[in-house]
Amino acid sequence: MEKTIAVLPGDGIGPEVTRAAVKVLKLIARRYQHEFNFSYGLIGGAAIDALDNPFPKETADACKTADAVLLGAVGGPKWDNNPSELRPEKGLLAIRKHFGLFANLRPVKAVPALLASSPLKEEKAAGVDLMIVRELTGGLYFGEKARTADDAYDTLVYSREEISRIVEQAFELARVRRGKVTSVDKANVLESSRLWREVVEEKKAAYPDVTVEHQLVDSCAMKLITDPSAFDVVVTENMFGDILSDEASVITGSLGMLPSASIRTDGFGLYEPVHGSGPDIAGKGIANPAAAILSAAMMLRYSFGMETEAAAIEEAVQTVLEDGCRTADLAEAEGRSLTTEEWTDKVIEQLDA
Amino acid sequence: MEKTIAVLPGDGIGPEVTRAAVKVLKLIARRYQHEFNFSYGLIGGAAIDALDNPFPKETADACKTADAVLLGAVGGPKWDNNPSELRPEKGLLAIRKHFGLFANLRPVKAVPALLASSPLKEEKAAGVDLMIVRELTGGLYFGEKARTADDAYDTLVYSREEISRIVEQAFELARVRRGKVTSVDKANVLESSRLWREVVEEKKAAYPDVTVEHQLVDSCAMKLITDPSAFDVVVTENMFGDILSDEASVITGSLGMLPSASIRTDGFGLYEPVHGSGPDIAGKGIANPAAAILSAAMMLRYSFGMETEAAAIEEAVQTVLEDGCRTADLAEAEGRSLTTEEWTDKVIEQLDA
Ligand SMILES: CC(C)[C@H](C(=O)O)[C@@H](O)C(=O)O
Ligand SMILES: CC(C)[C@H](C(=O)O)[C@@H](O)C(=O)O
Repeated sequence: MEKTIAVLPGDGIGPEVTRAAVKVLKLIARRYQHEFNFSYGLIGGAAIDALDNPFPKETADACKTADAVLLGAVGGPKWDNNPSELRPEKGLLAIRKHFGLFANLRPVKAVPALLASSPLKEEKAAGVDLMIVRELTGGLYFGEKARTADDAYDTLVYSREEISRIVEQAFELARVRRGKVTSVDKANVLESSRLWREVVEEKKAAYPDVTVEHQLVDSCAMKLITDPSAFDVVVTENMFGDILSDEASVITGSLGMLPSASIRTDGFGLYEPVHGSGPDIAGKGIANPAAAILSAAMMLRYSFGMETEAAAIEEAVQTVLEDGCRTADLAEAEGRSLTTEEWTDKVIEQLDA
Repeated sequence: MEKTIAVLPGDGIGPEVTRAAVKVLKLIARRYQHEFNFSYGLIGGAAIDALDNPFPKETADACKTADAVLLGAVGGPKWDNNPSELRPEKGLLAIRKHFGLFANLRPVKAVPALLASSPLKEEKAAGVDLMIVRELTGGLYFGEKARTADDAYDTLVYSREEISRIVEQAFELARVRRGKVTSVDKANVLESSRLWREVVEEKKAAYPDVTVEHQLVDSCAMKLITDPSAFDVVVTENMFGDILSDEASVITGSLGMLPSASIRTDGFGLYEPVHGSGPDIAGKGIANPAAAILSAAMMLRYSFGMETEAAAIEEAVQTVLEDGCRTADLAEAEGRSLTTEEWTDKVIEQLDA
C-alpha cells in the first residue's frame, strides 16, 4: 500500500522521538512492501517561532493531503508566558477541531518488565489493560465561553449526534477487546450527562455482545486506583476524559511508553505520545522513543488497517524491554542506559530478524 | 459552652455511625464541661420515604436552629430508580445550597497502621497529609442547565466573589498547616479557570507566609498518585474537587476513616463521613464509625473552636488503631474484628482515661 504521513515533530524531545518512529515506519515499509511518503510541518512552539501561529495554514495543508499525522510533542518554558492564542497547546486544540478528530484513544497496559516503577502495589498494577476513549471535539473545551465584569463562564454542550459517534467508537473497540464498556458521566448532577447516559442506553441494543456499565466520574477516579484491572473500554466526555486518561496514564509506571490516537470515522487520524515535550532532556538524545514508536503502530492499525505490522512493532518493543534494554528514564540505578537511537535500533533489529 | 447539634442519620449505615459519633460527643461534653443538645432530622432516602422530599422543610428548620449539623450518609438501591428530584443525593445538594456551605474540606492523612491496605506502594502513601478544599455551591453543579430536542447543556459559572471566599479559606488553612497552596484549574482551556487563577494571584499578596502554585487538573490527577505527599492544601472548583477529592480519598487505604466538613464563614457547618451508606452492611452493627467520629472532631474544631477536644478525639482514634483494634473493613485475615459499638467504646475508654 502507498500512504502519505505528515510528520509534525513539534517541540522539545518531539523531533527526537518522531525521528525514531519514522525510522521504524521505514523499516516496516521495506519489510512489508509498502510505500510510505513523509511530509513535514510545524506545530506548537516551533510554529509560533517561525510563523506566529501554533497551527499554521501550511501545516493544515500538509496534513490534509496526508493519510495520517504523526506528532511529537508541543510546549516548553519559552512560550509559557505567551498570550493564550500564541500558546503551543492551542496548536493541539486547533488541529483536533480542524480535522474533526473526535475520538481520542489512550490504551494503558501494564508492562511486566516495568511494574517496579508503578506507584501502585505491583499486584494492583499487574493486570491493567484498558483503553480510555475520550470525546475530543465537544464539551467545555469548545462551548461558548465569556467574561463579564465579575463573572466568567464556560458551556458544556453535547448533541445526541456527538455522543452517538463516540459511544459507537467505544462499542466497536470493546468488541475486539474484552467486550466491556464503562461509560463515565455525572448523571446525578449534569443535564449533559443525562443525555449521554440515554444515548448509551439506546446504542447498547445494537451490541448484544458487549456489557455496559455506567459509572460516576468521582467513583471512576477512585476505582482506577483501587481496581484498575476491572476496566476494559472507558468512554467519556472531553473534560472527564482529560482528567481520567492522565490519571490512568500513571498507574502502571509506564507513562513514558504510552501512545495515543485521535481519529474520526474515515480512518484519518493523528498519532502522538502521551508524554510531554520534556524540555529538560531535549536535544540530549536520551528521550524514550517507545511512546512515539507505539503511536506509529496505532497509526498502522487504525488509519491503515495494517494489524500485522502494528502487532509486529508492539511485540518488538515488548521483547526489547524484556531483554533489559532501557532508556535513561527507565534504567535501574546499576544498569547502563541506551540512547534514543540505540534503543530504536534494538527495536529495528527485532523487527528485521 | 452550650451548643445545639442537628443530627441527620440518613440511610444505610448512617444511623449506626452517627450514633457512635454522638456517643463520643456526649463523652466530650461531660469531660470538658460543655452542654451539647441534640436534635434529629430526616434526610435522603429516609426523608423521601417519610415526607416525599430528600431535604424536607422540617429538616431545614432543625438545622437552622442548630450550631452545626452531623450527617451520616444518604442513598441506597431502594431509591436508585427514582426520578431525579426524589433521589437521596438531591438532599445533599439541597442542604449545601440552602445553607450556603461553600467550602468543603477533606483532609487525607496516612495512618501508619493502615498503610498495608493502600493501593499505593507503602513508601508513596506514607507521607501523605493533604487537605482538599473544594468549592461546593457554584460551578457546573448549580449553573443553568437545559435540554433541547437534540442537545443538552450545563453552565460553568463563577463570580470573582465566589472564587475569593474559597481561595481565602484555603490560604487560612495553609497558614495553620505547612504553608502551601496548590490551586487547581484548567486555565489553558476554561475562561472560568482563567478568572480563578487571576483571583488566586490577587489574593496571594495578603498571605506572604504561604507558597502558591498553580496546577492543571489533569496534571494534578497524575501527581496525586505519583507524588501525593507533595501536597498540603489543594483548592479547586466544585467539579474538579468532586473528582480529585474522591481520587485522593483512596490513596492511603483509609477511605473508611475519612471525615469531611462543609462550612461557611460564620462557623456553621455540616460534618459527614466521606464514605457512602454501605447498604450491603447496614444494620449489622459492623460499620466502621471512625469517619463519623472524626467528622465530629472536625465540627468541634471548625464550628465550635474546640481545638483541644478535637485533637483529643483524633489522638484517641490513632491510639485505638495502633493498638490493633479494627472493625471488619480493616481487619486482617487472622484478627478478630470489633463491632461498631465495641470499637466506639475503645475510643471512649481512651478519651476517658
Ligand atoms: C494541552 C491541553 C489543552 C490538552 C487537553 O486538555 O486536551 C492536553 O492536556 C491533552 O490531554 O491532550
Ligand atoms: C452525591 C453527589 C451529588 C455528591 C457530589 O457530587 O457533590 C458526592 O459525590 C459528593 O462528593 O459529596
